[in-house]
Amino acid sequence: MADAEPGHARPTFDLREARAILARTPVVLDTWLRDLPDAWLAATEGPGTWSPYDVVGHLIHGDRADWIPRARRILEHGEALPFDPFDRDAQFRESAGRSLPDLLDEFARTRRQALDDLDAMALSEADLDRRGTHPALGAVTLRELLATWTAHDLDHVMQIARVMGRRYADDVGPWRAYLRIINGIGS
Amino acid sequence: MADAEPGHARPTFDLREARAILARTPVVLDTWLRDLPDAWLAATEGPGTWSPYDVVGHLIHGDRADWIPRARRILEHGEALPFDPFDRDAQFRESAGRSLPDLLDEFARTRRQALDDLDAMALSEADLDRRGTHPALGAVTLRELLATWTAHDLDHVMQIARVMGRRYADDVGPWRAYLRIINGIGS
Repeated sequence: MADAEPGHARPTFDLREARAILARTPVVLDTWLRDLPDAWLAATEGPGTWSPYDVVGHLIHGDRADWIPRARRILEHGEALPFDPFDRDAQFRESAGRSLPDLLDEFARTRRQALDDLDAMALSEADLDRRGTHPALGAVTLRELLATWTAHDLDHVMQIARVMGRRYADDVGPWRAYLRIINGIGS
Repeated sequence: MADAEPGHARPTFDLREARAILARTPVVLDTWLRDLPDAWLAATEGPGTWSPYDVVGHLIHGDRADWIPRARRILEHGEALPFDPFDRDAQFRESAGRSLPDLLDEFARTRRQALDDLDAMALSEADLDRRGTHPALGAVTLRELLATWTAHDLDHVMQIARVMGRRYADDVGPWRAYLRIINGIGS
């Protein structure tokens, strides 16, 4: 079964390396965003897009409702019981009215708990090859789930940098031509 | 003269806000990258592209050779004396053989010095309207230079996240469709 698993052919993924990224994300965001002027924290890329504040709430919800629950679902039910769908807008209800420092504190807690839960699973390489069922994408492996959790953290760090950088799209004047964060060239 | 300056029409830029981003970048990178497994630090997006390690060296060189020296050039010479060209590959000579922790320590120092120098300039709004000459882009204002310094930091934070996230381009399996950091859609 392991050989039939798509990600197995190029074994970039390493659980210890992935965990190193996952453990750092809350402290990176805390260092970066806590006490930053509101103009940065509330910035978006336009209607319907997320601010840095929104992203922190989304990461909290993912730690609670997505990654570890889905890993457990794979270990307990394999492909038989599909994952519950993930609500990508949950943070707009759950974070409403809360301060960013409060959310950062909570993200530190949810991530610590999630990593404790991950460690307690004591996953073997064979476990990482186990499959579950994504409600839209179909068969996925536990390894793919954990690689996605890691890349998803980095995706949202990238998003926060991009959202904040694009605030200065006009302010940089002619330098716009050199700044990929603003002109999007090569992204 | 201020009214003729292109960035002046949309006054997003605020020196105090920009400084808040500039002051955080070294500690964000330290928190994120120090002691991270080498596989992340040495990752690139292919031949000729930069690793997170390379980016830190580039930011150090920018603090030394680019932003503050150019701000001084504007204040001292206005448009009369163009900026010296910036060497975008200097870090490959200057960082050679140095450890990442050593570079992170140096970036903390160069940035602290650069911000001390910036503060000592005690720039007024009228100063921010002053113009210099970029060797390739022509007339630019001091405000545009400082907005670019800020966006440039964020551009490279974004780059580091992107480079690391794309290591897992294959490992995420079918989730690739959902991860903008990998599929590039909408960037």
